[in-house]
Amino acid sequence: MKKTALFPGSFDPFTIGHESVVKRALPLFDKIIVAIGYNSAKKGFLTLENRIKIIKNIFADEPKIRVDSYSGLTIDFCKLNNANFILRGLRTATDFEYEKAIAQMNNFIKSEIETIFLLTEAAHTPISSSIVREILRYGGDVSQFLPKVIDINQYFDSKKFK
Amino acid sequence: MKKTALFPGSFDPFTIGHESVVKRALPLFDKIIVAIGYNSAKKGFLTLENRIKIIKNIFADEPKIRVDSYSGLTIDFCKLNNANFILRGLRTATDFEYEKAIAQMNNFIKSEIETIFLLTEAAHTPISSSIVREILRYGGDVSQFLPKVIDINQYFDSKKFK
Amino acid sequence: MKKTALFPGSFDPFTIGHESVVKRALPLFDKIIVAIGYNSAKKGFLTLENRIKIIKNIFADEPKIRVDSYSGLTIDFCKLNNANFILRGLRTATDFEYEKAIAQMNNFIKSEIETIFLLTEAAHTPISSSIVREILRYGGDVSQFLPKVIDINQYFDSKKFK
Amino acid sequence: MKKTALFPGSFDPFTIGHESVVKRALPLFDKIIVAIGYNSAKKGFLTLENRIKIIKNIFADEPKIRVDSYSGLTIDFCKLNNANFILRGLRTATDFEYEKAIAQMNNFIKSEIETIFLLTEAAHTPISSSIVREILRYGGDVSQFLPKVIDINQYFDSKKFK
Amino acid sequence: MKKTALFPGSFDPFTIGHESVVKRALPLFDKIIVAIGYNSAKKGFLTLENRIKIIKNIFADEPKIRVDSYSGLTIDFCKLNNANFILRGLRTATDFEYEKAIAQMNNFIKSEIETIFLLTEAAHTPISSSIVREILRYGGDVSQFLPKVIDINQYFDSKKFK
Amino acid sequence: MKKTALFPGSFDPFTIGHESVVKRALPLFDKIIVAIGYNSAKKGFLTLENRIKIIKNIFADEPKIRVDSYSGLTIDFCKLNNANFILRGLRTATDFEYEKAIAQMNNFIKSEIETIFLLTEAAHTPISSSIVREILRYGGDVSQFLPKVIDINQYFDSKKFK
Repeated sequence: MKKTALFPGSFDPFTIGHESVVKRALPLFDKIIVAIGYNSAKKGFLTLENRIKIIKNIFADEPKIRVDSYSGLTIDFCKLNNANFILRGLRTATDFEYEKAIAQMNNFIKSEIETIFLLTEAAHTPISSSIVREILRYGGDVSQFLPKVIDINQYFDSKKFK
Repeated sequence: MKKTALFPGSFDPFTIGHESVVKRALPLFDKIIVAIGYNSAKKGFLTLENRIKIIKNIFADEPKIRVDSYSGLTIDFCKLNNANFILRGLRTATDFEYEKAIAQMNNFIKSEIETIFLLTEAAHTPISSSIVREILRYGGDVSQFLPKVIDINQYFDSKKFK
Repeated sequence: MKKTALFPGSFDPFTIGHESVVKRALPLFDKIIVAIGYNSAKKGFLTLENRIKIIKNIFADEPKIRVDSYSGLTIDFCKLNNANFILRGLRTATDFEYEKAIAQMNNFIKSEIETIFLLTEAAHTPISSSIVREILRYGGDVSQFLPKVIDINQYFDSKKFK
Repeated sequence: MKKTALFPGSFDPFTIGHESVVKRALPLFDKIIVAIGYNSAKKGFLTLENRIKIIKNIFADEPKIRVDSYSGLTIDFCKLNNANFILRGLRTATDFEYEKAIAQMNNFIKSEIETIFLLTEAAHTPISSSIVREILRYGGDVSQFLPKVIDINQYFDSKKFK
Repeated sequence: MKKTALFPGSFDPFTIGHESVVKRALPLFDKIIVAIGYNSAKKGFLTLENRIKIIKNIFADEPKIRVDSYSGLTIDFCKLNNANFILRGLRTATDFEYEKAIAQMNNFIKSEIETIFLLTEAAHTPISSSIVREILRYGGDVSQFLPKVIDINQYFDSKKFK
Repeated sequence: MKKTALFPGSFDPFTIGHESVVKRALPLFDKIIVAIGYNSAKKGFLTLENRIKIIKNIFADEPKIRVDSYSGLTIDFCKLNNANFILRGLRTATDFEYEKAIAQMNNFIKSEIETIFLLTEAAHTPISSSIVREILRYGGDVSQFLPKVIDINQYFDSKKFK
């Protein structure tokens, strides 16, 4: 049976921390679906289309990775894609508590779906999408926190956020 | 003097975790008031009326339990009801930090009101009202997380949340 | 049925944090047994006899409090004393994780014994027996961390620890 | 070179916890700028003007302290003021995780700006601006949590928040 | 290339928490080596021989699982066995901090070895080998915390620990 | 008045994490005393003499840094050296809880001594002396975790620890 993992998140934006988790998890799986969860009621920082475009760019040379989006329960989207694993990166102890509750609840509902955790690299631990957004909002330089192929400035209108 | 405890929360919805804390605390107290704190400005998931109805159903056979609602400071509602104890369930270390700040602040203001903590059962630790709501929003089955007498689907309009 | 709580610990030494937890819990229970757990293989800082003497002194005027010692499982000593509650004070999030594991394991083994937690007062949070011992070892003044009736210096030989 | 620290926060309101951190840090620095970060899109509890007025009052006799406000990145405001240090108070482990991410991200962007942490005093640990606001909203007495010179009630319209 | 994971631990004793992690990780790997790390200077509770015997019994019907022991660095034992993954179970936030440091240090030294984390099941979270040992020491019944095939009492001399 | 900080620790061994904290704190102080606390009853990994020699080597070109050792209470050694500040590095949330208790207890005893915290750099967060020792014990290469001037292998007898 093929080993497929879903890597869910809002990825607003996708950071080098996310990139590293996906790359280090690749040897474990036959396919990884980077799955952008969105809520049509909440406006994101980047549009869903731009987030998809950016992540596709990053992994353009990696045939085992697919990029998709969903709105609904993560475990339902796993089922739909025959993914038996959820892949998550862990940064901090506070993260851990939250991720633990979600993963254990998912396990109660669909016990055949297992959540697999990788740690962020030490140097990536402080990098979160929300801090990156905050810096972007005020015109700061975030290029060192984003995968090399991305020029984030072409994807959003900085004036809108000032 | 009668030992009366207030068990405050938003209970949106009331889970088997809440139910277990109340039941295990019953031998300690003469009366437990399950007190739904609400903020008239914030719309909940379930209406206040439905939350009251559901919790009354759950404890229909338990004469020591009363269900009520309040908007304001928890310690003021304690005073009004001659409750000298606040009862709280603890799930995680993050919870603990928050509950600690609240309980110690209450102690500074009204030192005669003591907060008593029980742990959730191990198997209930991941169950939180907010995760249950999230699952409900997308049509997932949450029956295993709610007290047996509740058919949650008759209390809210799932279409509204999709 | 009488409400009896066991307050277990090594109390080496008993601090104002311990004293405050016991006093604030008194209105909840008919009897509180301060129970010094000891391990005959490990030498404590204060002798078991002195720890008993000190705690008895502190609560000399409080008829609802009994002081005892035990070596073995806490839940077995509860059973022996018809205590249905274990009383514990919580200081920090790290404490909480440890206490949670112990309390939930006890619950698996003897589900009729419930652990009740009180928080230490804000100003007492940093006070732990192990830090107090460390200060004592080097001749520091710990009187502000210990109940008023105790002159700790008459109970141990400071030269032995230097 | 002069040692200047920025003490950033929303200070809505400024508590005795904040006051203590600033006073204890004074011997370390030649100048401390209490810098109120604000977001013009979010309405605070106290107006920015009142927050400035209150903090200036508290430190009226302290020539090394300046009060200012900014909207934008904290490290940019540091640069503008030739401040090489950011001063922060730490209350809880959850706080710590968040502060760590911010400080390490700032360090990546401008490595010459160092964040210096002081702990809140034990008795101040539970005091947070958000809990103080919550109590104020319902007409509770918060005077023991605020610096002596402040009569908070003259600075906001309690009717508006009920 | 074969996917081999090392599951290191002292397993003194091996609990149902450990068993569940291994079983849930099986679909991910071609081989899992349960590797008992020992320190010849420290006497364990169970002998190394008995720990090996017990774990072999538990997984007698599972051809993908091998049981072995080592003394030295875990990453060196990985290399020796061509294992590119280390498998670990996470129980609590305190665990997480410790595991994070170890995994990130391993990553600095041999970056080709990745540590994969699974969560313990909610109901298993409080179960740790050290608490199980403590209960065993005083003659308590730990059968519900151990895999079914184990009668722990035949593997150690309880008198020795009283 | 001169600003003198004590940087206490066992430094067994002194890592690049420690080095970074001292270097980043230098602009704040007129003098930093790296103070090796030792307990004559406990044998360390490196001898006290070697630890002193190593740290002196690392900071040979830095006139503001002095290296010393003490056995006793840290605050007493501060007094002896007219140090009004204790400098500490923070790595993790678990560290934080422990450091907080120590610092607040010190503050109760000698309120004029203030503890100043710096964070370790993100990439240094997992590096602790105890993990470095563990790797050294089994002949692993720890050079990337130690300041450049140190060839640790000339300071201890690896055979002794195998």
